[in-house]
Amino acid sequence: MITQRLVQDCLDTPFDSIPRDVVEHAKRCILNWMSVAIGGSRHASVEAFISMKDELGTSAQVTILGRPERADLLWATLINGTSSHVHDFDDTHLETLNHPTSVIAPVVFALGEYLNSSGAAILHAFILGMEADLRIGNSVSPSHFDSGWHITSTTGVFGAAIAAGILLGLDEDELVYALGIAGTQASGLVEMLGTMTKLFHPGKAGQNGLWAAMLASRGIESSRRILESDRGFARLYSSESDLGLVSRHWGSSWELSKIAFKPYACGIVLHPIIDACIELGRKVPDSEVGALVITVNPYVTTLTDKPNPRSGLEAKYSVRYVAALAFYDGDASVAQFTDARAFAPEILALVDRVSIVVDESVQEDETSVRLITTDGKLVESRVKHATGSIDNPMTDEALIAKFRKLADPSLGRDEVDALIEDVLRFEALDTIHQLVANTVAN
Amino acid sequence: MITQRLVQDCLDTPFDSIPRDVVEHAKRCILNWMSVAIGGSRHASVEAFISMKDELGTSAQVTILGRPERADLLWATLINGTSSHVHDFDDTHLETLNHPTSVIAPVVFALGEYLNSSGAAILHAFILGMEADLRIGNSVSPSHFDSGWHITSTTGVFGAAIAAGILLGLDEDELVYALGIAGTQASGLVEMLGTMTKLFHPGKAGQNGLWAAMLASRGIESSRRILESDRGFARLYSSESDLGLVSRHWGSSWELSKIAFKPYACGIVLHPIIDACIELGRKVPDSEVGALVITVNPYVTTLTDKPNPRSGLEAKYSVRYVAALAFYDGDASVAQFTDARAFAPEILALVDRVSIVVDESVQEDETSVRLITTDGKLVESRVKHATGSIDNPMTDEALIAKFRKLADPSLGRDEVDALIEDVLRFEALDTIHQLVANTVAN
Repeated sequence: MITQRLVQDCLDTPFDSIPRDVVEHAKRCILNWMSVAIGGSRHASVEAFISMKDELGTSAQVTILGRPERADLLWATLINGTSSHVHDFDDTHLETLNHPTSVIAPVVFALGEYLNSSGAAILHAFILGMEADLRIGNSVSPSHFDSGWHITSTTGVFGAAIAAGILLGLDEDELVYALGIAGTQASGLVEMLGTMTKLFHPGKAGQNGLWAAMLASRGIESSRRILESDRGFARLYSSESDLGLVSRHWGSSWELSKIAFKPYACGIVLHPIIDACIELGRKVPDSEVGALVITVNPYVTTLTDKPNPRSGLEAKYSVRYVAALAFYDGDASVAQFTDARAFAPEILALVDRVSIVVDESVQEDETSVRLITTDGKLVESRVKHATGSIDNPMTDEALIAKFRKLADPSLGRDEVDALIEDVLRFEALDTIHQLVANTVAN
Repeated sequence: MITQRLVQDCLDTPFDSIPRDVVEHAKRCILNWMSVAIGGSRHASVEAFISMKDELGTSAQVTILGRPERADLLWATLINGTSSHVHDFDDTHLETLNHPTSVIAPVVFALGEYLNSSGAAILHAFILGMEADLRIGNSVSPSHFDSGWHITSTTGVFGAAIAAGILLGLDEDELVYALGIAGTQASGLVEMLGTMTKLFHPGKAGQNGLWAAMLASRGIESSRRILESDRGFARLYSSESDLGLVSRHWGSSWELSKIAFKPYACGIVLHPIIDACIELGRKVPDSEVGALVITVNPYVTTLTDKPNPRSGLEAKYSVRYVAALAFYDGDASVAQFTDARAFAPEILALVDRVSIVVDESVQEDETSVRLITTDGKLVESRVKHATGSIDNPMTDEALIAKFRKLADPSLGRDEVDALIEDVLRFEALDTIHQLVANTVAN
């Protein structure tokens, strides 16, 4: 009954029953998501999809954020999901390392634009999809990710199916079947981190989840017990699970509220190190840096063990490169992870002088970085809670500044102001047509 | 090097190096596949996809077998793959319970039509894709299927990527990446057997594999070690594997030659029981059947344990229903698995009088069925090798008769004759345009 109960929980949660602070946080997710999607919309992997959809001759149903081209529902979901993940700048559910908005928001935006849905209806579907995704993730964590499943896509496909199903108005049986159809497509491997393949994981999960809901709406039946069956999701995709977490405290506790936003364009586990290296860069002149000794939680080396990155993209998965870039540039944003910058001579020289100490007692949002100067002095920077962590979240002002930084290069100031204003009053929008139109440069 | 070696094996195997008998068997696969695809092209799940592609406004690039509508490359692959699997009448690699042609043929037909490829080029890509699929399947069997992975789609996606990549002319690196992109989409659960969701597994795997090759051709990079990596396919999708099997005896031993064809429209494990019950039906008048005692290999109850099927489709997964239908009708084809026939009064009455004995010493293609008559006599039918098994294969004449049975209702006699003739000389075709046009009624 786990699967059916989750569906009933969703159907028993009208928009006006959702607490105000949850709705506000959902809008932060949308704001952050739109900024990274617009900022990523010219990436090489997005261009590859644009070229594919052109060759396939897809129809022009809905908007591709930040671009003049349009695509059908499924392709727009795929492309917008990819744009929002390419810079590793999307939001994160810290406990499970899940990036849910890059999966769910593309679905509700494409479908909501197509159906002329109201802002409130879109936000409602978004919140329920996020909550389903994150709770399923909790139930199989941490063994799921640890085994090698890229949780963003593997549980994201369920959230996408719920979000799409709610917007489409599916009934209880149809939503249960949509989850079954979603689950038989659950895929995405941690093996792909550091390659271009990982970049489409959220978009593909969103597309598959939307596809599942569209099929269920056409009478396609499925397993009624995808989550809890002996040959279902929890058993096949994790070594330990607690499916009781899926519906526990539904309506009184909200996983969506735990979503954190990234000030830096790489994996969240590296953010404390970046904070510390930026601070050291302010304290110590470039010419005096001798070596760096970084003490980290074990997750850091599990997830960022690329010894010899071959591209700026791969450098995001090397703690050494990220530390060196943060020290010299005082940032770890899109500009740092170009091939040219990541492999600049001073970066390569410092990379060889970084050593890593793994310490189980160090928390995931914590680090200590010790810099040894060329003349043997020790300067330490300790970070208790990285910027963007639960205990040190990005402020609304910082999120808006991030939006401007990512969107301003391609859009005019007026469009950006209008976009921000519309997202902040999202639940009052009659439709999102003007909002998405404003993401495209004239 | 397992993944790269497989790619090299494929690239080192030109069409004219493939033994004549392998090419002939590949054409049997195509013949059988076309018959079941045409025969399944009006199924409810195919109609659902037609309705979805219409709503999405996909372009009309290539043929949907047996139907006047056309679709883009990816949608045609999905729909043709679904048509060919809906009646459980497609071919089988018996050792691994894989149905590869329903995944691979839709890819090479859609892409080959689009690219104006020759029959020889299409057959070449088909054979290499099949061989890759089946060998990867061998390397993770039997633990892969036993855990709950529907091998037809999970390994099929790799074969589809190879087949598409060969037709697209990808180089070594691109083919390796295509396998990576395919592998991160590997999905499909045994949980779905007996539901409509299972019916699209092959089509979706074919679509995902084609998509992977198209992406790789556009410069999308991926893992180079999808099969053998610590977080790769073999480790995540099986508890025991032997990746040495992927390339062992490549070119001298052909898995494709082990493909068997089905005389009956349900799971292969039930075929010996059907043979036996048909024989009993000939020997014993309907009015004298008291009960049936069926002795089977353990796989039969693992895969066909539906206790109370709710549809003709689900009845395919109930050994009791299948036995009763075969006894009364002397067949187990599309007509038997309609809701009306599967739940007819005499079927329901006999279903309650079937008992199953599981015996580890009984082979998968073997059975003994004992019929106890209403006046207490015992009549036994023993089957050593079911029709359609390796040791008792369907003849070419039987395959042609199956083709006529499935295609004749919708097509004229002339089209059917032309189709059969063209498939039998497939490698001599300049293009497949006329062949696929002949699958569509005028």
